[in-house]
Amino acid sequence: MSLQVMILSNHMFDVIKGDLEVLEEELLAAVAAPVELVTEVGTHLVQSGGKRLRPALCLLAARSGPQFDMKHALPLAVAFELIHMASLVHDDVLDESDTRRGAPTANAKWGNQVAILAGDYIFARAFDLIAGEGYGDHVSKRLAQLVCNLSLGEIVQDSAVYRASQGEADYLDRIRKKTADFLEICCELGAEVGGLPTAEQQKLAEYGHCIGMAFQITDDVLDIVQTTETLGKPAGNDIRQGIVTLPVIRALEVSPEAEELNAIVTDPEMTAEQVKRALEIIMATDGVDFARDRAEEYLERAKAALPEGLPRDVYEAYVMVADFIGGRDF
Amino acid sequence: MSLQVMILSNHMFDVIKGDLEVLEEELLAAVAAPVELVTEVGTHLVQSGGKRLRPALCLLAARSGPQFDMKHALPLAVAFELIHMASLVHDDVLDESDTRRGAPTANAKWGNQVAILAGDYIFARAFDLIAGEGYGDHVSKRLAQLVCNLSLGEIVQDSAVYRASQGEADYLDRIRKKTADFLEICCELGAEVGGLPTAEQQKLAEYGHCIGMAFQITDDVLDIVQTTETLGKPAGNDIRQGIVTLPVIRALEVSPEAEELNAIVTDPEMTAEQVKRALEIIMATDGVDFARDRAEEYLERAKAALPEGLPRDVYEAYVMVADFIGGRDF
Repeated sequence: MSLQVMILSNHMFDVIKGDLEVLEEELLAAVAAPVELVTEVGTHLVQSGGKRLRPALCLLAARSGPQFDMKHALPLAVAFELIHMASLVHDDVLDESDTRRGAPTANAKWGNQVAILAGDYIFARAFDLIAGEGYGDHVSKRLAQLVCNLSLGEIVQDSAVYRASQGEADYLDRIRKKTADFLEICCELGAEVGGLPTAEQQKLAEYGHCIGMAFQITDDVLDIVQTTETLGKPAGNDIRQGIVTLPVIRALEVSPEAEELNAIVTDPEMTAEQVKRALEIIMATDGVDFARDRAEEYLERAKAALPEGLPRDVYEAYVMVADFIGGRDF
Repeated sequence: MSLQVMILSNHMFDVIKGDLEVLEEELLAAVAAPVELVTEVGTHLVQSGGKRLRPALCLLAARSGPQFDMKHALPLAVAFELIHMASLVHDDVLDESDTRRGAPTANAKWGNQVAILAGDYIFARAFDLIAGEGYGDHVSKRLAQLVCNLSLGEIVQDSAVYRASQGEADYLDRIRKKTADFLEICCELGAEVGGLPTAEQQKLAEYGHCIGMAFQITDDVLDIVQTTETLGKPAGNDIRQGIVTLPVIRALEVSPEAEELNAIVTDPEMTAEQVKRALEIIMATDGVDFARDRAEEYLERAKAALPEGLPRDVYEAYVMVADFIGGRDF
């Protein structure tokens, strides 16, 4: 089972269940365009699902503040999901992916041209939505910088493929840009529009950063430990794409077979047999446990960062998110 | 000679020559990114030139207002050029173009992946730049809507290729989204940040809209009347790409050989010989003159829209832009 399906079947977002239902409607409204084809693409993207983790984190934070007003917070939450959606659409073009979440990708269904332009449209709709809500310049600036960093992170990742020489610091920097910054901003800006004091905004930002790091490390571990069947995509997919993750970096440091592993993960022409061999070498080291420990450390930091004054149900939801990401039973 | 080179060698922007020099520096600063490859792409894009028509129109408008402050107006002007640049980068990916303005395109030089992501980055940088300048929500919203409309316009154009059944109204709607809206917003928002009263902002918006329409019609005419040599790209390029422009629409209405023309322009497999034949059929009608008359009408409307209270030098610059676009000697 993928992390996403598990998040959906978990009850941690029950406290904002009603909010998330409204969010779905608003997402559909947001992608409705004066050009039918664009509405069709946007509707397909919204309806192929997703865990809505980003808007959920934003709404939980907003709900904690003294000035919470769902009508005011909603466009920001929608904007976060639109930005996420647009970046996935462009990623799928870059990776020439045919399916995502079991549904055909926009590029597979409508071709690269439409996918690129629909992605541009959805990015711009996010900025359109938040302008006029009176969030202030800080929110717009942070959102724009988020999109800048997502693109930079993707370029850095693409240019680092099949290069095993990256250390842990490079890896952490990469997943921060790719995932953690995004979750951080969702929490931080949610708290801001909810009217929480700056100190608490910062604490929630730290929480978002830490669960984002843990989330990506866990996702990267899953790519190695799960079977193709449970994962819904081929195991060792990152290795195949030349993306060097933490268990690999650790194995390259400690494995007696590091040289063989290095030769495989740096070879763009690696065979399926070699990917299997690489997985064996990694599994014979403490690479996976090492990565899981790192994730656990981030989750402890995340929970410790939660402000004490949060409403009980919000606090518990945040703790459940952290515990869930740390669950070792998947 | 292309329209662009002619604009650069013309003196109509002398009144803001100093501003445009500062603009170049700011453009280079704006594309400087924490990832070297992205800086490299951005610098290449800035240095391959362009007529800077959009920021020039914005700065002329801003300069007309009582609150003109170059430091305040500049980020907006830069944002307009960045948005233009980003949309060209994505267009070149869509069209698989190898060169633009005589220089290799980003996709030709760095591949589609980098080009798509660099385009995303530059779009986002535009929104990053304007946030924090205190322009207010109206400016952010108009810019976001501009990017939405550029994407929609491109999708509409792509989905209408090789379909000759479009009438003049469809054509005008398409070039409005593709070009005229952009120039309109440059004038309108420039006037707004310069502190011109709403009525004058609207007049300058009308001016921008009209020269945008005239500009695109003229550009489309050039594609038909110029030789490959003077144009710097193959003549009849629009026909080859299935883009039906005004002279073609007119010829399809009035030519005795309309049927043959229709068969050619709707055939994605048309040969070079057939393109030549299509050009002959069009040139035997009043299609080109018809389009030039339309452009002329827009230019008259543009000049009539100019507010009377504009500073003399700005007024003259705007008139020169209109006269230049209408010049029949190219």
